[in-house]
Amino acid sequence: MSTSSTSPAETSGPEQSTAEQYVIGVDYGTLSGRAVVVRVSDGAELGSATLDYPHAVMDTALTAGPAAVAGAPIALAPDWALQVPADYVAVLRSAVPAAVAAAGIDPAQVIGIGTDFTACTMVPTLADGTPLSELPAYADQPHAYVKLWKHHAAQPHADRINELAEARAESWLPRYGGLISSEWEFAKGLQLLEEAPAVYAAMEHWVEAADWIVWQLTGQYVRNACTAGYKGIWQDGEYPSRDFLAALNPDFAGFVSDKLEHRIGQLGDAAGTLSAEAAAWTGLPEGIAVAVGNVDAHVTAPAAQAVQPGQMVAIMGTSTCHVMNSDTLAEVPGMCGVVDGGIVSGLYGYEAGQSGVGDIFAWYVKNQVPAGYVAAADAAGTSIHQYLTDLAYREPVGAHGLIALDWQSGNRSVLVDHELSGVVLGTTLTTRPEEVYRALLEATAFGTRTIVETFNASGVPVTEFIVAGGLLKNPQLMQTYSDVLRMPISTIASEQGPALGSAIHAAVAAGAYENVLAAGQAMGKLNKDVYRPNAASADAYDALFAEYTLLHDYFGRGGNEVMHRLRALKRDAVATDADTQEAAA
Amino acid sequence: MSTSSTSPAETSGPEQSTAEQYVIGVDYGTLSGRAVVVRVSDGAELGSATLDYPHAVMDTALTAGPAAVAGAPIALAPDWALQVPADYVAVLRSAVPAAVAAAGIDPAQVIGIGTDFTACTMVPTLADGTPLSELPAYADQPHAYVKLWKHHAAQPHADRINELAEARAESWLPRYGGLISSEWEFAKGLQLLEEAPAVYAAMEHWVEAADWIVWQLTGQYVRNACTAGYKGIWQDGEYPSRDFLAALNPDFAGFVSDKLEHRIGQLGDAAGTLSAEAAAWTGLPEGIAVAVGNVDAHVTAPAAQAVQPGQMVAIMGTSTCHVMNSDTLAEVPGMCGVVDGGIVSGLYGYEAGQSGVGDIFAWYVKNQVPAGYVAAADAAGTSIHQYLTDLAYREPVGAHGLIALDWQSGNRSVLVDHELSGVVLGTTLTTRPEEVYRALLEATAFGTRTIVETFNASGVPVTEFIVAGGLLKNPQLMQTYSDVLRMPISTIASEQGPALGSAIHAAVAAGAYENVLAAGQAMGKLNKDVYRPNAASADAYDALFAEYTLLHDYFGRGGNEVMHRLRALKRDAVATDADTQEAAA
Repeated sequence: MSTSSTSPAETSGPEQSTAEQYVIGVDYGTLSGRAVVVRVSDGAELGSATLDYPHAVMDTALTAGPAAVAGAPIALAPDWALQVPADYVAVLRSAVPAAVAAAGIDPAQVIGIGTDFTACTMVPTLADGTPLSELPAYADQPHAYVKLWKHHAAQPHADRINELAEARAESWLPRYGGLISSEWEFAKGLQLLEEAPAVYAAMEHWVEAADWIVWQLTGQYVRNACTAGYKGIWQDGEYPSRDFLAALNPDFAGFVSDKLEHRIGQLGDAAGTLSAEAAAWTGLPEGIAVAVGNVDAHVTAPAAQAVQPGQMVAIMGTSTCHVMNSDTLAEVPGMCGVVDGGIVSGLYGYEAGQSGVGDIFAWYVKNQVPAGYVAAADAAGTSIHQYLTDLAYREPVGAHGLIALDWQSGNRSVLVDHELSGVVLGTTLTTRPEEVYRALLEATAFGTRTIVETFNASGVPVTEFIVAGGLLKNPQLMQTYSDVLRMPISTIASEQGPALGSAIHAAVAAGAYENVLAAGQAMGKLNKDVYRPNAASADAYDALFAEYTLLHDYFGRGGNEVMHRLRALKRDAVATDADTQEAAA
Repeated sequence: MSTSSTSPAETSGPEQSTAEQYVIGVDYGTLSGRAVVVRVSDGAELGSATLDYPHAVMDTALTAGPAAVAGAPIALAPDWALQVPADYVAVLRSAVPAAVAAAGIDPAQVIGIGTDFTACTMVPTLADGTPLSELPAYADQPHAYVKLWKHHAAQPHADRINELAEARAESWLPRYGGLISSEWEFAKGLQLLEEAPAVYAAMEHWVEAADWIVWQLTGQYVRNACTAGYKGIWQDGEYPSRDFLAALNPDFAGFVSDKLEHRIGQLGDAAGTLSAEAAAWTGLPEGIAVAVGNVDAHVTAPAAQAVQPGQMVAIMGTSTCHVMNSDTLAEVPGMCGVVDGGIVSGLYGYEAGQSGVGDIFAWYVKNQVPAGYVAAADAAGTSIHQYLTDLAYREPVGAHGLIALDWQSGNRSVLVDHELSGVVLGTTLTTRPEEVYRALLEATAFGTRTIVETFNASGVPVTEFIVAGGLLKNPQLMQTYSDVLRMPISTIASEQGPALGSAIHAAVAAGAYENVLAAGQAMGKLNKDVYRPNAASADAYDALFAEYTLLHDYFGRGGNEVMHRLRALKRDAVATDADTQEAAA
């Protein structure tokens, strides 16, 4: 665990006016939390600090709790992904003061703090917000921990929710592209009930981490409108009915009334003020405004000055989230959801996504790239990702003879199926590692094109494409997206878009701007049309995209359910093996 | 380049009777040639030596010839694979005397020499056997070099041969499972004619390397019955007709009469005697018997004492050849061929094969395994192959959730299509390198099962399964084959089966035994039923085999021609790029 901080040279202390006001944006990602100090007047980013979560992501074993301390960590089943709530508080105690110190500002001039989080990431708590995992009785129970967004073990529960909702023609189902994701509040909640009923019974709130962290800052629980809408099936002021829940499982009938329902806060509003305890953690003034919680993707749109209808913002990191406003309410198959005011008030906010992008590239580099490449990248002083990219892009489009499906982490949009899995097809004995890597890069671009084409065909056309997030730093990847989409790519002019977006919301919550739109215009940053499509490449990619689509539909739409059967075989094999080992012990 | 030799301790010199007779078997593989000294009386292997071919396999650039010497080697198109004839002679000059020295015998007691070769591996020569590649005029012309068995660039030519033969209902077509391979004499010959007509015109013989090396030993050209039948479409004493050839291409009409037709020698017969020149190379007595040329796979059957009907011998190395005798003439779809007396006289010899097996594992280890694994294998003092195997087999069958298609080198049987390519399906973000490796091992077992089931369904059932070749050394792989086939696996009790088989043929050619059957009984070696199927594993593999078959038929039998289209895109992309670069130069 370490906190790293940066302080841009051009904003050193002495030149700053003592009258300036500042806000703090804190971005909670998959592996770390980042705090950024932002000037209210113009959005200048003055200093930042990052803390890697001490427990990172627990996806094979529970590395927290007494059993882990005793050296016998509890194994997790396939597709689980957990986190530890205290890791989030550690970011407040470590990264926030480090960012303030790096910025060289007086903490007294900070007028607000805003946060954004991965979603849907869920914390089971007592009535006072204490996570169940912090109670000795549950500290060795995986179900008591935070279920991270990419916890994909609730797919059977999601399947049942979808079947029942379709059979009952529930009015909210089309708002989610016709499919509720296994990543969301209801599927994860049903899994919790059915696999660990005692934990479920002890749970008094089923809290989005986005709201849990605001609760830690203010001492008050406010549910944000964004996750309530996108992840909690809150539409037109209502949740799914008690009848519906009882039909899923009689014991689930009170899920909404007992565990979920709570006061909703609008984006940009203040959820409350900074408590004395949180002021002590962060070194910020007690009583400053704390913005209502938000989601990393959605909060980025104003940071990229891209909140007008048709401007799709792709936040490309471990996964990609696509957010876009529209003045039209439409049904987009396989979208994550449409929520009135889900991104900014007054417009319908659409969300779609790809559950694995940078994660896939990282998996590949870690598991499928030989030593010689890593050594050569080191010798060249470049990252292994950029090294593989540079090698692969010496070849023209299609020269690798490969096609890949980018489903190593399942498919969020437009298939909404986390039992799908990855494919690389076309390998020969002369296929090189960088060629497979490029095929994976391209597959994610094809996945994005599938999403954009689905929006275009559904009455909410994508007219501009703006990229934010860590993958911005790979120019060949960006050019590939431009070629594959046949659209110019604009890029956010900040390396910390979500944190900047959170800071923008903090400024609005503190009353420095009238609304998020106005704050985004003043504080957001965009470089227009940085990449433009190359016609010859675009033509060549069209041929590969046609192959991608054929395989996408064959494996993803019922032509061959091999991926589902392999998942079932895997689960059976692991379970049988565990039984055999237990019997032998 | 180095010659390595071994001399078994238990056969040290002093105990040997001076009356003993010896034979030499020389096995020409894909990357090296191996000579073994064998005792005629009982097949004891007394010493061996191996020479790696100096030019190995040329598959990306022509590393021989003036251009290569000048530092500007000529690039080869995808799917090419060439060799240099002088490398084969180097084996005679180096490995044969080294083996004799290692055995500690008196060369005067050697009564014969036999050889076997990869096939179909073709040398274009003048009338006296001089390879065209050794003429200055053609030394920079890729088409003048040896086309190795795995040169797969003649698929379009094979396709035309097959279409025409089917349209004309040529009587020989069913003898080859209905499909002539791009690896064989006619497809490679047609490619030569159409892509390099001047080289084709200069060529006076189109010679199997199996016969070219015997020509070097004896000074006489004799075509062996095995390759003439299996690779040269010589059936019932005839080749395809002049009419047929002219219909392919008018300039191809004389292919058989001008380039191919020649005296046929039967397996086990002497092709001639050792010439003075070859005696000087090898240090063996001038005038000893030289056996008719043979093929590495076919020559192994008597070495494994497996020449009875129903005994299938799988020679598992970089690729796998399956050979089996039967007293029945049947049409097996996708077999490589059935030749009367093609393995031993008096029985129909069947051949099938998988064009990539060990090659696929080697490709994977070289291109897709990270440094940590290689270091751990080194630290454990084991090969990376065995290390990956040991790790992967800690899991029960199916726990990796993967299915692969073993077509990285195309598919020989039963699809006979070298434009097919490899697939790995089912990867997730927790998939580990050893899991993919195991999926590849399993895929080759599924490929073998597909072949065995096709024979069973065609009236020539496989009743025993015997394995020879280098992959014998992986016991988990052997157990997987036993489980997947639900058959016991017997194994050859020699590490140099083909060389032993060649020595057996040398003994027959020298008159020490009446025929190959008798020599095989005296000199061959077999361990019966070393691996037996595990019923639980076999059941679990059945589920994976069902998935393999579904993908096999979808991608291999016209359900989705994506692999062919990707090959075409690859060829187009590479050609366009070369044009562009030339235009820019």
